Amino acid sequence: MKNIIVGQSGGPTAVINSSIAGVYKKAKELGIEKVYGMVYGIEGFLEENIINLGDYLESEENYELMKRTPSAFLGSCRYKLPKLEGNEEVYEKIFSILEKYEIDAFFYAGGNDSMDTIKMLSDYAKEHNKKQLFMGIPKTIDNDLPVTDHCPGYGSAAKYIATSLKEIIRDNASFNKSRLTVCIVEIMGRHAGWLTAAAALAKDDTCEGVDAIYLPENVFDLDEFLKNIKRLAKTKSSIVIAVSEGIKTADGKFVCEIGSENRKVDAFGHKQLSGCASTLAGIVANETGLKTRAIEFSTLQRAASHVASLTDINEAEMAGMKAVEAANNGKTGEMVVIERSDSKKYTVSFNTYDIHNIANVEKMVKEDWIDTKKHQMKKEYLEYARPLIQGELLPIFKNGVPVHLIRK
Amino acid sequence: MKNIIVGQSGGPTAVINSSIAGVYKKAKELGIEKVYGMVYGIEGFLEENIINLGDYLESEENYELMKRTPSAFLGSCRYKLPKLEGNEEVYEKIFSILEKYEIDAFFYAGGNDSMDTIKMLSDYAKEHNKKQLFMGIPKTIDNDLPVTDHCPGYGSAAKYIATSLKEIIRDNASFNKSRLTVCIVEIMGRHAGWLTAAAALAKDDTCEGVDAIYLPENVFDLDEFLKNIKRLAKTKSSIVIAVSEGIKTADGKFVCEIGSENRKVDAFGHKQLSGCASTLAGIVANETGLKTRAIEFSTLQRAASHVASLTDINEAEMAGMKAVEAANNGKTGEMVVIERSDSKKYTVSFNTYDIHNIANVEKMVKEDWIDTKKHQMKKEYLEYARPLIQGELLPIFKNGVPVHLIRK
Repeated sequence: MKNIIVGQSGGPTAVINSSIAGVYKKAKELGIEKVYGMVYGIEGFLEENIINLGDYLESEENYELMKRTPSAFLGSCRYKLPKLEGNEEVYEKIFSILEKYEIDAFFYAGGNDSMDTIKMLSDYAKEHNKKQLFMGIPKTIDNDLPVTDHCPGYGSAAKYIATSLKEIIRDNASFNKSRLTVCIVEIMGRHAGWLTAAAALAKDDTCEGVDAIYLPENVFDLDEFLKNIKRLAKTKSSIVIAVSEGIKTADGKFVCEIGSENRKVDAFGHKQLSGCASTLAGIVANETGLKTRAIEFSTLQRAASHVASLTDINEAEMAGMKAVEAANNGKTGEMVVIERSDSKKYTVSFNTYDIHNIANVEKMVKEDWIDTKKHQMKKEYLEYARPLIQGELLPIFKNGVPVHLIRK
Repeated sequence: MKNIIVGQSGGPTAVINSSIAGVYKKAKELGIEKVYGMVYGIEGFLEENIINLGDYLESEENYELMKRTPSAFLGSCRYKLPKLEGNEEVYEKIFSILEKYEIDAFFYAGGNDSMDTIKMLSDYAKEHNKKQLFMGIPKTIDNDLPVTDHCPGYGSAAKYIATSLKEIIRDNASFNKSRLTVCIVEIMGRHAGWLTAAAALAKDDTCEGVDAIYLPENVFDLDEFLKNIKRLAKTKSSIVIAVSEGIKTADGKFVCEIGSENRKVDAFGHKQLSGCASTLAGIVANETGLKTRAIEFSTLQRAASHVASLTDINEAEMAGMKAVEAANNGKTGEMVVIERSDSKKYTVSFNTYDIHNIANVEKMVKEDWIDTKKHQMKKEYLEYARPLIQGELLPIFKNGVPVHLIRK
């Protein structure tokens, strides 16, 4: 391979830049000439918004900063390739740019939509006898890509959620029973509840944990929820509940839509999916008379590189490296997957897998990992998730705040 | 002094426990027999909810954990002592408990309301020839206590705000101009804008900073705000704005109340002061058609001990130590104050000051530190605040999350 290019797509994470770093590192090991970065994913690529990653990552200091930089260093996009039929010119343009820059392999880090891009491009290349290779690198805090044991990005978001919930739980327990507060914390995840499940990791010897966890995998029963709160309020002096933004009632309605019939839609005419914690806090206050508070982790949970998981950062880097190694061995139309060994000690290996079995498939939390009666995660989930949040890669602080690497 | 007691009151912070640790440390140095802790402040004290701090802090390991534990280890309260006239029995009860436990000095860490308690009790003691001493220890993320240069708790909250905003700014800049998002971040501070001002600390060589800062010290002009956003949207591909929860329009209305005439009040019949960012995000979306996002730091900003300022932790500890030293020298009815030297290098000394000039007085951000035209903080503020967020005291991680010290 002469030159290669890498890009990022979809929602940013705290560790996606480590995958870009890994791609660069392995490429240099293999003597690849130029490692290009597409700015704003395939969308920027189509406008030839392309940079030379060597300009940034050659220095060891910058490489270390890159691993500590949240969000997409290269910029991201939410551009989904159109279907081939009737849109040949988009595909022709992509391949003409690849040829112009003498790019032999194209790497794309992202979630479901990004893997769809890899599928479309590798299929096109095969059908049109193009020699360029296309490899996917898994990255999503949602952890919902199939085949791979877990996704880079998840461990760090889970570590942020567990760490912040421990602090929220302590804060909420400041006052005595007469000032009991029901604190409802909303966590990302529209369909899969992996992130919300991570709330279970807050519980340990020095923390009582959250009192209940509500995942989108289960139908949300408002009456049962209120009964649960009233029951907890009888004995506890602090209640903290974790809910997924995606929880729905039996009629398929998002919780944040309850009582919103008259609520204004946003400027584009659609109701925004947010405020589920705030909706529930309002209902609880009205139905129980208890003091309530709603907290949304919002983009903090996907951007908090200052408390990222070292395991996650290392795996993100290795996933990038594996993608280049696989392309160097002629692989295309595949995504890097993480395989966990059966041994008691947590070890993983990296493999690649046919993108057709991955793109557009969502992996939900296993049904038998959820205790739907107690609204808690079972020990099988804790055993799965605990290793993913281990270790810290401390930020490089300057003037009291972490330093990042940014594009000039 | 034979025995002493310490308590916490008001909103918790990431470093208030360091003051408790400091009280214990200095007391042991001085050979004081027992250091009691009141559980849930003066409210718990009245019920004799009292623990022996030695049971927790004797071990060096626990002492270190205490300095890394957010929120109020001892529990807090929002109990304001009634005025003496007609409520003599409350005061008599307090002094009878002090006598029962042979307590010679009473230390109270907190903000304005807590200092009122110290004032009332020390006044009562003087008037009734009681020998017990009463000392206040400043603690408030709001940083609004007078006389003292700054308040323990502020530096850590400011460090969290600056660190998280840097991450939010990176996240919000992920996409290109076609997906421009206006992100409005709501920061605590009902009357004084110190915490919101800390948003200015996000700006450095690797971060463009927030685009505007709106403090409660200035009247909030919605039309000007919208004009500012429209102006920024012309050139920028990401907009991040910091607003205080307490900003008010010219008619004295909180921004979160705009358009809320028909909004439901909470269970207690009062409108909750929250959602100012969310109110503004809705207005911006409707008026400009731009994509918006609202983020509230909520209790995270006062509980995030995992990214606390070492300077702040050390000063909180020293404030506790100073309070005991002062009482040991016979002082009463005073609060510990931090004095900053005039030298270029940041150094502080600890003194004490008459509580009558402190209790119930709120210190606002200096008018000439605010650039009300550019909606930014001037360099005088940055020079004031930057030293307060320096240094880190890393959490002790176990199983991937920070360990805290909790009451049995």
